[in-house]
Amino acid sequence: MGLSKNKFKYIQSLKEKKFRSEHYTFVAEGTKLVLDLLATCQCQFIAALPEILAAHPEIKAEEIVEADESELKKATLLKTAPQAIAVFYRPEYDIEKADLGNRLSLVLDSVQDPGNVGAIVRIADWFGIETIICSPDTADLYNPKTVQATMGAIARVKVYYTDPVAFLQQHTHLPVYGTFLEGADIYTETLTGNGLIVMGSEGRGIRREVAELISRKLYIPSYPAGRATSESLNVAAATAIVCAEFRRRGR
Amino acid sequence: MGLSKNKFKYIQSLKEKKFRSEHYTFVAEGTKLVLDLLATCQCQFIAALPEILAAHPEIKAEEIVEADESELKKATLLKTAPQAIAVFYRPEYDIEKADLGNRLSLVLDSVQDPGNVGAIVRIADWFGIETIICSPDTADLYNPKTVQATMGAIARVKVYYTDPVAFLQQHTHLPVYGTFLEGADIYTETLTGNGLIVMGSEGRGIRREVAELISRKLYIPSYPAGRATSESLNVAAATAIVCAEFRRRGR
Repeated sequence: MGLSKNKFKYIQSLKEKKFRSEHYTFVAEGTKLVLDLLATCQCQFIAALPEILAAHPEIKAEEIVEADESELKKATLLKTAPQAIAVFYRPEYDIEKADLGNRLSLVLDSVQDPGNVGAIVRIADWFGIETIICSPDTADLYNPKTVQATMGAIARVKVYYTDPVAFLQQHTHLPVYGTFLEGADIYTETLTGNGLIVMGSEGRGIRREVAELISRKLYIPSYPAGRATSESLNVAAATAIVCAEFRRRGR
Repeated sequence: MGLSKNKFKYIQSLKEKKFRSEHYTFVAEGTKLVLDLLATCQCQFIAALPEILAAHPEIKAEEIVEADESELKKATLLKTAPQAIAVFYRPEYDIEKADLGNRLSLVLDSVQDPGNVGAIVRIADWFGIETIICSPDTADLYNPKTVQATMGAIARVKVYYTDPVAFLQQHTHLPVYGTFLEGADIYTETLTGNGLIVMGSEGRGIRREVAELISRKLYIPSYPAGRATSESLNVAAATAIVCAEFRRRGR
């Protein structure tokens, strides 16, 4: 069918951050994810089985190509071939225009696993957190693994990459939360309905220069208190517990 | 130094479940994880830098070999070479002897991602949940990725593989919880300090035949109520929120 050699090469090239940045595009696979993204992102190119295209006349893209299973199998960046592969333009957000004063937002300091970043975007979406600020060394949101791990939440949550130190210095008027082993019990502390929640890297936690800008240090108590346990929770697990607790209090 | 060709081959073979089952052993890498495991698991074999062995005279194994950086780099199953690689015998647990009546335990129904299983073992450890029952198609705990993802929690949490339907049928006297989109609000339901918490697979959730054995269906409310969001949280994120809430109530 219609998938040209150049298109194969183009899709494969987008595995690499260098080419994603150059083209300002990213790959999404699977009918459900592609349809979710079509709601908010401009589609450069879609290749799908003819029956998928027939069933979804609402699909709009600069280029639409019918592909057969073997072509999709050859083009996929995943283990199993999807019924649709699309390339989207990255949405452009202006962090200056984001209204951060009246809501909760997340700040990721050096979260390096693409799966964790994907899980955190889903958590944010579940708990109505619309904005995530990431340090430049946080895993790239547009990494194919991360895009797939977000399960469509990528279409609803705005993710910015910027230096967290400079960002937090510009937002000292907001409550800034973070989790620390020496923090205060999250279940007894006052939690506000607005502010920034900083989550640190898998290995090293929150960097010192970022930690210095956190005014409200929280701790997720282990159970039973005082028992020897893991030193920490996985960053996505900790993010889930913290966001859930902020939202429980806001009910 | 001392790493023989056969040892290299043996370590590499343990990437595969088939060989792990045959030898009833698994690989752990990194000084911290290896030391954690030495506390509870019998060590068949350890290869480490001479300085690591000198610093830890407490290390006991059937065979201890000094290795240099290039050997560890060649032997590692990870991206970066560790300072120690060890092969442990799997601990043997008898599920019949586990005292499940007075505590909380987890049941994983077909959780297929090794990273998720590793994160869930860490969550269990953090929240003092000592037992996890896994369906046979749940990712293998002894997969090197999972072992590393547990960050040492694997040494403290007992994980059993057995058919969850038969297991739940034998434990109908216990409260059995699970999360469902149509469940009751976890924040307003009564949560007991004992019982079983069932978590389902990444794609399909809890299977019907397992769901039928769940007496207390829970729901983690999204925020704000009624807004369009992701259909679900990542299974490790949901497990984290559920375990945290059971333990918050138990304080």
